[in-house]
Amino acid sequence: MIRLRVYLAGPDVFLPNAAAFADTKRKLCDAYGFTGVSPFDNEIDLAALSKHAAALRISAANEAMIRGCNLVIANMTPFRGPSADVGTAYEMGFARALGLPVFAYTTVGDSLVERTRQALGAEAAERPSGQFEDSFHMAIEDFDGVDNLMLDGAVESSGAPIVVKAMSDDHRRFTDLSPFEECLKLAARQLKVTRDR
Amino acid sequence: MIRLRVYLAGPDVFLPNAAAFADTKRKLCDAYGFTGVSPFDNEIDLAALSKHAAALRISAANEAMIRGCNLVIANMTPFRGPSADVGTAYEMGFARALGLPVFAYTTVGDSLVERTRQALGAEAAERPSGQFEDSFHMAIEDFDGVDNLMLDGAVESSGAPIVVKAMSDDHRRFTDLSPFEECLKLAARQLKVTRDR
Repeated sequence: MIRLRVYLAGPDVFLPNAAAFADTKRKLCDAYGFTGVSPFDNEIDLAALSKHAAALRISAANEAMIRGCNLVIANMTPFRGPSADVGTAYEMGFARALGLPVFAYTTVGDSLVERTRQALGAEAAERPSGQFEDSFHMAIEDFDGVDNLMLDGAVESSGAPIVVKAMSDDHRRFTDLSPFEECLKLAARQLKVTRDR
Repeated sequence: MIRLRVYLAGPDVFLPNAAAFADTKRKLCDAYGFTGVSPFDNEIDLAALSKHAAALRISAANEAMIRGCNLVIANMTPFRGPSADVGTAYEMGFARALGLPVFAYTTVGDSLVERTRQALGAEAAERPSGQFEDSFHMAIEDFDGVDNLMLDGAVESSGAPIVVKAMSDDHRRFTDLSPFEECLKLAARQLKVTRDR
């Protein structure tokens, strides 16, 4: 039986135990009838390369891995700012252009406009129109979305909502896998994947 | 003479005079023999739509516009954090998957690791390995890059470096168009575009 391949996108690659964490995600994929594919699956010998050459090799390898997958599950949890990790956003766009469905989750519950106003604090100012702007007078996007409309649109046009599961414990923000598992359930239902055991 | 179409990606859409700013970029495109295409070119009547429906329509329209273009010039200037705007990152990935060359610029000169350490301040801690991490113990990417390696890789694999032009005047961070013009020059040279006048 051929299994659908899921590219595991997210800032999880920056966790101290990133390779083990990817293994845990892969086991969950397995349990739902998918094959998980992580950026850690490439076998590039980084030691022999300059930082710059290593970055280009990893980038090319990740793109090739996405091309070899059938869907993406992206961790859109805000990363060092009000929005998702830009590497994850890039991979979501890459996948959508190829026609791959993108499922996604976040462990932070507020909307983009709420998070951005909170991050900007006193720098956020209200325009006469009622819209908010930052200190550069640039508008704070307000479409009631989880994140930038390109990211929200990518997930919703794939057929499922973004799974939002707010964590009460901030320390589990990047490690709680229950919303990832929820994405696997949504994907299995939508793509009619059955567990082969 | 058929002109190559350039999709204008960037957080410029959030400027208070965004439509006029897009027109200025379009005129520069014209001067270098390209046709500029901006997210403001869509003619969606947002007034009749809910915020959510509007977001989905804009997202779909932007993706369709990228599909109708031959290259992208992306404004990678850090936006509300150490990295580029996530909508821009998404569009860069979308374009690369379609095989479009992506040119890019930033008006902030530091590397990703420098900007991230600066943004995190006392929350950035040094690991025994010498690498830095944030308060979630997540690594600060350090490949001597301008931004996340997926973004840097997208531009460099397209054939040109990211144009970095640090602004001494912070207020021009999102409005100075000289690095954008530099991208037009690079694109014209690489894609052998000649001015038709």
